[in-house]
Amino acid sequence: MVVSLRLPLISSLLSPASSRSSNFTFSRRALGISWRQQRPLRLPLLSSGFSARSSSTGTEIRVDNSKNRVPEGAITPRSQDFNAWYLDVIANAELADYGPVRGTMVIRPYGYAIWEAIQVFLNAKFKETGHENMYFPQFIPYSFIEKEASHVEGFSPELALVTIGGGKELEEKLVVRPTSETIVNHMFTQWIHSYRDLPLMINQWANVTRWEMRTKPFIRTLEFLWQEGHTAHASPEEAEKEAIQMIDVYTKFSYEQAAIPVIAGRKSKVETFAGADKTYTIEAMMGDRKALQAGTSHNLGQNFSRAFGTQFTDENGQRQHVWQTSWAISTRFVGGIIMTHGDDGGLMLPPKLAPIQVVIIPIWKKDGDKVEVLSAASSVKESLQTAGIKVKLDESEQRTPGWKFNFWEMKGVPLRIEIGPKDVASQSVVISRRDIPGKQGKVFGISMEPSVLEAYVKGTLDEIQSSLLQLAKTFRDSNIVDVSSYDELKEAISEGKWARGPWSASDQDELRVKEETGATIRCFPFEQPQGPKTCLMTGNPAEEVAIFAKSY
Amino acid sequence: MVVSLRLPLISSLLSPASSRSSNFTFSRRALGISWRQQRPLRLPLLSSGFSARSSSTGTEIRVDNSKNRVPEGAITPRSQDFNAWYLDVIANAELADYGPVRGTMVIRPYGYAIWEAIQVFLNAKFKETGHENMYFPQFIPYSFIEKEASHVEGFSPELALVTIGGGKELEEKLVVRPTSETIVNHMFTQWIHSYRDLPLMINQWANVTRWEMRTKPFIRTLEFLWQEGHTAHASPEEAEKEAIQMIDVYTKFSYEQAAIPVIAGRKSKVETFAGADKTYTIEAMMGDRKALQAGTSHNLGQNFSRAFGTQFTDENGQRQHVWQTSWAISTRFVGGIIMTHGDDGGLMLPPKLAPIQVVIIPIWKKDGDKVEVLSAASSVKESLQTAGIKVKLDESEQRTPGWKFNFWEMKGVPLRIEIGPKDVASQSVVISRRDIPGKQGKVFGISMEPSVLEAYVKGTLDEIQSSLLQLAKTFRDSNIVDVSSYDELKEAISEGKWARGPWSASDQDELRVKEETGATIRCFPFEQPQGPKTCLMTGNPAEEVAIFAKSY
Repeated sequence: MVVSLRLPLISSLLSPASSRSSNFTFSRRALGISWRQQRPLRLPLLSSGFSARSSSTGTEIRVDNSKNRVPEGAITPRSQDFNAWYLDVIANAELADYGPVRGTMVIRPYGYAIWEAIQVFLNAKFKETGHENMYFPQFIPYSFIEKEASHVEGFSPELALVTIGGGKELEEKLVVRPTSETIVNHMFTQWIHSYRDLPLMINQWANVTRWEMRTKPFIRTLEFLWQEGHTAHASPEEAEKEAIQMIDVYTKFSYEQAAIPVIAGRKSKVETFAGADKTYTIEAMMGDRKALQAGTSHNLGQNFSRAFGTQFTDENGQRQHVWQTSWAISTRFVGGIIMTHGDDGGLMLPPKLAPIQVVIIPIWKKDGDKVEVLSAASSVKESLQTAGIKVKLDESEQRTPGWKFNFWEMKGVPLRIEIGPKDVASQSVVISRRDIPGKQGKVFGISMEPSVLEAYVKGTLDEIQSSLLQLAKTFRDSNIVDVSSYDELKEAISEGKWARGPWSASDQDELRVKEETGATIRCFPFEQPQGPKTCLMTGNPAEEVAIFAKSY
Repeated sequence: MVVSLRLPLISSLLSPASSRSSNFTFSRRALGISWRQQRPLRLPLLSSGFSARSSSTGTEIRVDNSKNRVPEGAITPRSQDFNAWYLDVIANAELADYGPVRGTMVIRPYGYAIWEAIQVFLNAKFKETGHENMYFPQFIPYSFIEKEASHVEGFSPELALVTIGGGKELEEKLVVRPTSETIVNHMFTQWIHSYRDLPLMINQWANVTRWEMRTKPFIRTLEFLWQEGHTAHASPEEAEKEAIQMIDVYTKFSYEQAAIPVIAGRKSKVETFAGADKTYTIEAMMGDRKALQAGTSHNLGQNFSRAFGTQFTDENGQRQHVWQTSWAISTRFVGGIIMTHGDDGGLMLPPKLAPIQVVIIPIWKKDGDKVEVLSAASSVKESLQTAGIKVKLDESEQRTPGWKFNFWEMKGVPLRIEIGPKDVASQSVVISRRDIPGKQGKVFGISMEPSVLEAYVKGTLDEIQSSLLQLAKTFRDSNIVDVSSYDELKEAISEGKWARGPWSASDQDELRVKEETGATIRCFPFEQPQGPKTCLMTGNPAEEVAIFAKSY
């Protein structure tokens, strides 16, 4: 029995629009927007095993005869429909799934491993720069949120509220944290007394909740994971320095680990965080040329310290309010990685954040070759593992090598090592790069000798890392247009590009651009062109150029 | 001006029963039980800096003249009031603080670092035993909780419910996860199709919420952090093996890392997790001889898979419900460490989980000695750090060495190195053990030579680790009484001890023991005495002994 891998009956079995559970009583309508408004994450066809049951007959459908089929076509081509491609990659590479509550996301092991790699790197950087981890409760008294005027205005529309606890109606509603500035300040008032207690520099890894109406896996979900740094300082200069330091940490991380050439800069007043004096941001260009705000660092000034009375006694015995910062990167960044590097073949992961950097595919036809091929593959795996490389040996016999090639390409593994009987005979391997398709990316006859192979693999991973960054940079730069008039701006945006031009116009003008073009000021980049500038909108002198783009 | 370190005005300034914030509008009453029902965590006198401001006058009070005062008396002696001692240690060692919402806890950096050490070790063990990390949403549709009959019975009284999202009343209430078996099963139905998808073994590190009425920092809080493992298997034998494997992981972790000689065993039916067939537990004896359930592993059988329809097609093509386990350790474990090893001097941390294993205190009187003492201290610090030891150099000049000795003892740092001018001259150091008070624990003339010092320090840390375990074991064993009648049991319990005796009586009898003595069956330990047994309650034959104790 030959069954296509794109069995409609399997998809209907598993799409989030239905449930396989016979006693599934949970009402979708009850949770707000219906599932149908979400594009269903498609069946992860390629890895959920190759048997399934028909919902009507209970018969197991075996697809053993399709062993040689490769999963081509399982993913919508990127060029055809970017959004469909994105959701297909997430489903097929098993990065995430929809949770039962509208807008929530289950982060699956492969997706979570990317987040873990981000955590490991950033966590070390935060510690190096003098921050300590801690944990604040997620329930915040509603009255806290109301204390900082612009904060409540910004966040109140998207709050989730706990009103019942232990079977009883609560007298004061509790906010499930959308961010922690308020509770942090409440605690800081108890810990900060004198200038000697400053700077106070902490970070927490936590979940946060924002009741978003339009959601998209990783990019905008009702609940997401992030780190939020919070610091208090004795002077505005120190706070500013810290806010800049952290956006720099994020920028370097993006370039060096994620191979994403973000543009760092300052947000316009309109786009500044609710409660901040200044917001710094890193803006990344996705494959569809929309901008993604990938991380932010806020100089909060004394806005929260005044609202909460977070004061210290300075060296002259005077009471002052502390100056503060907060900064965050979230699981949204995983979405940024997918949409920066992925291609029609699926995911493409930067080696430094890849959960699996090298996959080994043993190849044999005759049973007589099997033992020596597998044994060679195992020892290659072991020597690479010992060298600190994240390696997986796919020795399953359920799938053909061709199928495995496509599968691991779709999962974005940077390097593939093939080992067959001839390779064993010559004590060498074949190595293929994910980022260079076909024969161009394939090198034969690399020695199995551990030190040689290790050096080759490490060198190639480094090359891939640089190459991904270079590619993304070229793409970015060829899609940013310098504009000197509103007409030029509109043209660039209508072509799907980013527009960069001098800007000193009003907030009203900025909102008008948004209304008329769909683009917002992503940032005033730190890197500014020299010389005098004339505002593209008003013709008045301008001190800075701004970048306008449509964004996620 | 000499000011006692126990300034009542500072405590009243900072105790959670009041607030320093002038615009503090948050109503305590609104959140249920008032603060006064909690013993306030005392002012962390010892480390919040040594200046403070009188709330009435605004004058800064400098306590420089009390430089030689040591913080003796800041902590209630353990023998005098165990609970007060526990809360004092938490406040003074800066492990945690109360959050603004009743029963919530802020985990401060030093306390969080202990949790991080627990995470690092267990996370590696979970991966070694084949589990992958992932993340499930914390909002669970209320209807999910109702599906497994005993689960809803066990958890519904302590649920926190979100009823408003994005400004609108939700049609279905959302449960803030108290544990994730229900949502895990909902997702497992989508990922599990055939026996080839099994075993499915995952873990998540997350926050959970249980609306507890009587709370205590770390031990029982409204929100806590934990890991929860969830697995699905193709046979009951495999599930049982997994449940046992994970309680073994916890047991070894407790003995080898935390130096806590837990007793592992099976819970009675009465004490089994709501939704499990069997619950395995590790029970630890605290310093007041109350038992602490420090970790559990559940064999869930098919209870949840039947409720949610989590089925697979077996090798014979038959549909079956999966067999499952779940297992967890939480931030409660940090409370267990405090209450197992702490003494009148404060915290005492097992070296393997201590955020700081060695503190170096430089000592000088003449300014002329300062440079060379500090330089020697720095190079000792560096050589120990290079050797992978977690070391802190306390070179602040605000405090006397004597004060620092007491402070770091109170923080439970296993080893202290003192370096003065004479030590520099002889190129040696003085080393003191936290676990052996006074001169007995002090060794002079250990060479500064890196390899010698490193070996000595590592050896001594290992000795302390073993010694803490041995001490706790001796304490435990001298407080377990073998009983053969209910009278003997009652006597043991009334003396504050644990009673171990043969048990085959009814659930009613078990509840009667609880009512009459306050003790519950902690477990039927895995280690059982040989030979025939007679139930202590009924005189009938019994297969096992049970351990009864009062517990947290």
